[in-house]
Amino acid sequence: MATELNTRMMARALQLARRGQYSCMPNPHVGCVLERDGAVIGEGFTQPAGGNHAEVQALAEAGDASGATAYVTLEPCSHTGKTGPCADALIAAGVSRVFAAIEDPNPLVAGNGLDKLRAAGIEVEVGLLEADARRVIPGFISRMTGGRGRVRAKLAMSLDGRTAMASGESQWITGPAARADVQRLRAMSCVVVTGIGTVLSDDCSLTVRTSELGLPLAEAELASLNQPLRVVLDSNLQTPASAAILDGAAPTLICHDEKLDASTAIFASGVDRLALGGDENGLNLAQLIDYLSARQSNEILVECGPRLAGAFVREGLLDELIVYMAPVLMGSAARPLLDLPLEAMAQKIPLQIEDMRKVGDDWRVTAIPQY
Amino acid sequence: MATELNTRMMARALQLARRGQYSCMPNPHVGCVLERDGAVIGEGFTQPAGGNHAEVQALAEAGDASGATAYVTLEPCSHTGKTGPCADALIAAGVSRVFAAIEDPNPLVAGNGLDKLRAAGIEVEVGLLEADARRVIPGFISRMTGGRGRVRAKLAMSLDGRTAMASGESQWITGPAARADVQRLRAMSCVVVTGIGTVLSDDCSLTVRTSELGLPLAEAELASLNQPLRVVLDSNLQTPASAAILDGAAPTLICHDEKLDASTAIFASGVDRLALGGDENGLNLAQLIDYLSARQSNEILVECGPRLAGAFVREGLLDELIVYMAPVLMGSAARPLLDLPLEAMAQKIPLQIEDMRKVGDDWRVTAIPQY
Repeated sequence: MATELNTRMMARALQLARRGQYSCMPNPHVGCVLERDGAVIGEGFTQPAGGNHAEVQALAEAGDASGATAYVTLEPCSHTGKTGPCADALIAAGVSRVFAAIEDPNPLVAGNGLDKLRAAGIEVEVGLLEADARRVIPGFISRMTGGRGRVRAKLAMSLDGRTAMASGESQWITGPAARADVQRLRAMSCVVVTGIGTVLSDDCSLTVRTSELGLPLAEAELASLNQPLRVVLDSNLQTPASAAILDGAAPTLICHDEKLDASTAIFASGVDRLALGGDENGLNLAQLIDYLSARQSNEILVECGPRLAGAFVREGLLDELIVYMAPVLMGSAARPLLDLPLEAMAQKIPLQIEDMRKVGDDWRVTAIPQY
Repeated sequence: MATELNTRMMARALQLARRGQYSCMPNPHVGCVLERDGAVIGEGFTQPAGGNHAEVQALAEAGDASGATAYVTLEPCSHTGKTGPCADALIAAGVSRVFAAIEDPNPLVAGNGLDKLRAAGIEVEVGLLEADARRVIPGFISRMTGGRGRVRAKLAMSLDGRTAMASGESQWITGPAARADVQRLRAMSCVVVTGIGTVLSDDCSLTVRTSELGLPLAEAELASLNQPLRVVLDSNLQTPASAAILDGAAPTLICHDEKLDASTAIFASGVDRLALGGDENGLNLAQLIDYLSARQSNEILVECGPRLAGAFVREGLLDELIVYMAPVLMGSAARPLLDLPLEAMAQKIPLQIEDMRKVGDDWRVTAIPQY
């Protein structure tokens, strides 16, 4: 049913959607194109939370959109949140046809926006470039359908699979382009999770830094406005008061063992704390992810050492592994990619390689564990 | 000076050259195209040793080549070996112009063939697609210019850089496409080197198997005619008499410590033996490569475990590392890619990634160590 024009317009809407990926969370980033007689008359993408949705942006740009065809990457909303329903706005503007790439993944609302459009006599088509649209907002879809946000770990390794020398020395395995790519991963995440080991060894700040994003200045400034929540898995509350992660540059949550009396912690009282269950293997990671998901975290980035990354894999909680592979050998005495003691080939964990690309002099592997 | 037609013809000659890569060693594989008035009138590539060189094949196909332009990927030979000089054949055929991608890399003969052509009034142009032509015969060029053949190690690993479980279990890390690719690597090699550990644990035969090459039958049959020399590094002569590598399906050379009395070896007396120097780190690998190079070995493939592969890297003898990376995690208890004990980031060995491509479900990384 879709013509080449329709497909081209939806592809443009998907491009626009990505422009909101660093700034509109916890809302899904959506793109919208308004077209009449083959010409684009308005474009929009989701603005930071509280601002306009993509459709309203595009309608504002178009002025008169009567008789136009709208291309949206996600079903227009039908409820009033911080902004009015987009379905109503499209109806009021007099658009005659709407292409939606995917229905709202929330089973409680799926189709309501589309029904509203149809009831108003608007022709509705669903599914154009659906697979591409799903790849744009995987965390939002995961949270809406499975209840959990998408957990992605980022690790840097040598070609021989090592993440640090035995001493812990690891700066720098990868080059500046890969490090800028990590900044962008952070910027598109609602949360960055790390372990106390990384805090103690690297004194990491885990913030999004405007100048390191490798984006045009206006985009970089927008991307660094919403700093992701920094989460430290710190069973015994060992985070030093002087740690960079407590610098106030972004919200921080320290997770500790519920058996510990958190009132003894020496660090600034303004920092949020979360008591989690735990055992000899560490804190309960599923409990953490459930908590973060309930806080509307779509994309959860794990930036840590082999121990914590291995624990996420062992628990089957890791949805995506991003490995920056540097063109270098670090040798067999160096630290592993993941602490993951397996004994037989039958226990190996298959991966689906989603993407493999050169980033500067390094290679970025995107792999989906097949538990 | 070269036109688009000239470049296209040389590119075709390079394609033809590759068709001899499995069968004409120790001669370099060369391709030749004869063109007149924009049309190809003859094509050829180097036949198995003792057979025609590329130029003679192409001239035979052309019949009358007077006034033609010849495109050869390597300077035509000027000396009489098992066959007559190709330069003389081109002169006799009356070709009017010769494009040679590269001069003969042997400094003792470089330019002689071209001079002979020029002396006969033929217009000669050198250097068209030179870089591509060099990549076709790196082992021959290395041997002619540096005295040593090109040493390439092939290893299969998981994404996390592991080549076997701690128990030694490793079948199969990679899929059938990668294993067929290894068969083709063997087929293009003059020698396959392994260690006694691999012989004892895998009872490998290291032969080129027609049915496993993934080539059209005629090509596969040609490719498996010349079995590479199998070399076992076996300091203490532990190769069992029943080992597959002693099956007589291909020539075999057992290398042992020169301090050992080889007359005590129990295996078949028909197998060649080579005494090498050695110390606590194993046999003298440089001595082995020098020996093999003197035996006209252009491409030397090392198929072994992490210990021997690590030794080749530590000695700076490895020219190229081919890693088949399987989409799987094998965990931190598994064996490393290379036994290579390094302590500080300053000791890391930089690599130049020459090629990265998907082979079946695996990824093949071609890396050049930058010692």
